[in-house]
Amino acid sequence: LKIISGGINSPKGFSSTGNFVGIKNKISKMDLAIVFSDAPAIAAAVFTTNIVKAAPVLWNQAIISDKGKVQAMIITSGNANACTGEIGIKHTEMIAEQASEVLKIKPKEVIIASTGVIGVPLPIEKICDGIKTNYLKLGNSELDAYLAAEAIMTTDTYSKQIAVEIEIDNKKVHIGGMAKGSGMIHPNMATMLSFITTDIDIDQALLQKLLNEIVIDTYNMISVDGDTSTNDQVTVLANGMAENKKITEEDGNYHIFKSAFLHVNTYLAKQIVHDGEGATKFITVNIEGAASKNDAQKLGKSIISSNLVKTAFFGEDANWGRIMTAMGYSGVEFDPELVSIHFTDNISTIDVLIKGKPIAFDEEIALEILKKKEIIVNITLQEGDASATAWGCDLSYDYVKINGDYRT
Amino acid sequence: LKIISGGINSPKGFSSTGNFVGIKNKISKMDLAIVFSDAPAIAAAVFTTNIVKAAPVLWNQAIISDKGKVQAMIITSGNANACTGEIGIKHTEMIAEQASEVLKIKPKEVIIASTGVIGVPLPIEKICDGIKTNYLKLGNSELDAYLAAEAIMTTDTYSKQIAVEIEIDNKKVHIGGMAKGSGMIHPNMATMLSFITTDIDIDQALLQKLLNEIVIDTYNMISVDGDTSTNDQVTVLANGMAENKKITEEDGNYHIFKSAFLHVNTYLAKQIVHDGEGATKFITVNIEGAASKNDAQKLGKSIISSNLVKTAFFGEDANWGRIMTAMGYSGVEFDPELVSIHFTDNISTIDVLIKGKPIAFDEEIALEILKKKEIIVNITLQEGDASATAWGCDLSYDYVKINGDYRT
Repeated sequence: LKIISGGINSPKGFSSTGNFVGIKNKISKMDLAIVFSDAPAIAAAVFTTNIVKAAPVLWNQAIISDKGKVQAMIITSGNANACTGEIGIKHTEMIAEQASEVLKIKPKEVIIASTGVIGVPLPIEKICDGIKTNYLKLGNSELDAYLAAEAIMTTDTYSKQIAVEIEIDNKKVHIGGMAKGSGMIHPNMATMLSFITTDIDIDQALLQKLLNEIVIDTYNMISVDGDTSTNDQVTVLANGMAENKKITEEDGNYHIFKSAFLHVNTYLAKQIVHDGEGATKFITVNIEGAASKNDAQKLGKSIISSNLVKTAFFGEDANWGRIMTAMGYSGVEFDPELVSIHFTDNISTIDVLIKGKPIAFDEEIALEILKKKEIIVNITLQEGDASATAWGCDLSYDYVKINGDYRT
Repeated sequence: LKIISGGINSPKGFSSTGNFVGIKNKISKMDLAIVFSDAPAIAAAVFTTNIVKAAPVLWNQAIISDKGKVQAMIITSGNANACTGEIGIKHTEMIAEQASEVLKIKPKEVIIASTGVIGVPLPIEKICDGIKTNYLKLGNSELDAYLAAEAIMTTDTYSKQIAVEIEIDNKKVHIGGMAKGSGMIHPNMATMLSFITTDIDIDQALLQKLLNEIVIDTYNMISVDGDTSTNDQVTVLANGMAENKKITEEDGNYHIFKSAFLHVNTYLAKQIVHDGEGATKFITVNIEGAASKNDAQKLGKSIISSNLVKTAFFGEDANWGRIMTAMGYSGVEFDPELVSIHFTDNISTIDVLIKGKPIAFDEEIALEILKKKEIIVNITLQEGDASATAWGCDLSYDYVKINGDYRT
């Protein structure tokens, strides 16, 4: 696995651009990204489980369930096109048609994503005009990938990109990705969007299965504020231009790809939490010795989602009592008397609880660890052999400020 | 139903006191409450569903499951006696024995509750000494009830009490109650404790059934921060001294009592939210037209538990998109296109969504409503006839401050 530059444009045949079209009403904020693949790509995707689904989510779900090939992605930021009823559906169609016209592809070959304020119709003319004037700027440079990654942001403080190279059948295969985290332009829900490009040749059903599998260990193991958006989605396009022998089963080549694909998605998921709204600290929670992986994941998620755990980290407080409490209401059965907890920054370590017994720890070492930007909590149960990792951030004044602002 | 003074001492035969014994290490903070009933009382209680249960919760559960009579309650604040292992169990026994000795009752007739910091052994000598020197101060005045209500507080900003009088069989029957809300002395979990006294003569199983029933509509419909404590409990003592004909079935008299009992518990539950950590606003969410009561309750709870909804209220923002989002991930099936939402302060009203369609509302009237301390959100679905009400508060800078403080 080689980390390379180029983001979503690193796989062969992909180009992108990012531009200002005025959705955000701020001249310095990009709000339209276009991604194009020279060859039709198979597509796999997962979508929000929120039953209130934004119009572009519904549009994409139809494409994915038809197993349709995809050649472009249009992503707008500043307006989520959610809770916008029939006009929202119509606007999604208009975006696809506009992209279809200029890119010479079918409307159904266009994946659409939006993020931002809810319940307000899209400024559709600005978007269609933007597609018309900006598709000509599509390019496959590192800068073009950066522009696209910047254009999908809302309150993110930096863009999130990655690219890796692997070798399969002596062919170089690339995976690029970009994601956006929690953000809004008007106060709104956090929306997680992630887009992966790759030039691997792989069976669509196998790619979808792989995506479903890795989502459980990556995006589903992060939390910024516990609110599941109406717009969440992860979309993968694979255009086959690496010309490897097509992967159709879970063989050795599949596992090489899987490992790189997992790396890319884990990186992006973690970056989203790093840049969580108002976050000052990045928290990794490792659970070991759980009865099942599902139990381990539930325990980890419960801890990183607890407001009281999150405020304790903001306060640099080794408050293991709140961690035990969050485990206790997670819905998982376990014996609290067999739980051990320790905190580490990978330099120093403090044991705070060993087999249910509180340990008097050195407050100075504790503070040294808790003052760090990245803190690891290791939790060991004695229920079985399963483990999981969850990633979260603290809850700060700035989270309240960012989300409590007036919409005006 | 007559609202009267006297709190938990308003029912015949109950007396109480509140004192300083030094658990909190602050001279101005009371931390020991003693409640006594002249006659042995039947007891009903509900406890936290957290699988990590504090020692006093385990103690009380044994009493309640034995259907034992109870004559005293010892409540300490400043230390939760949770995650304290065998020593915690031992300390609970020592409190019961000390109370037993001075009050001339059996240890098993003593209900014990603690709230405060987790994982630290109780200062048991201070507590036993406190019981020994303070039980003599037990009195049945309004002031004595106030002292007990004050002594169970942690970060509560005011004590929460109520008393009502009803008539059953031409006998005056009283119900008194006190509760504490979210709070800590060192940063800790929110702990909800509620104690109800009554002089009604009622069958124990019937009282327990009633309590189980009303908890669903009262305490279970509030949220301050979504964290379920290890110490939560609601305990009711009924000493029969009103001398009414014993209530043994769900007859007319039962329903008179039930209505008053519901009033008392609803009042205390709402007061806990009013005084939620850092809360500046009290939010009532009414759900109508749900397919089932359980659905209506899930929807209401999901809304008042959402950090994004809570910060929007703090920001005085009519952000119905976040409300729809929280409904969407509640796990309840419904048609978003049939949802209507309006905000009111009982003076002005704004419609923000009618059958799924956003309504352009007057921002000035919206701000007028949202600037109020108490805001009502009415949500109508078209799935059925079921309804529910949930109560919550906003999420403010002060919540983060209170819970992010160093433990030192």
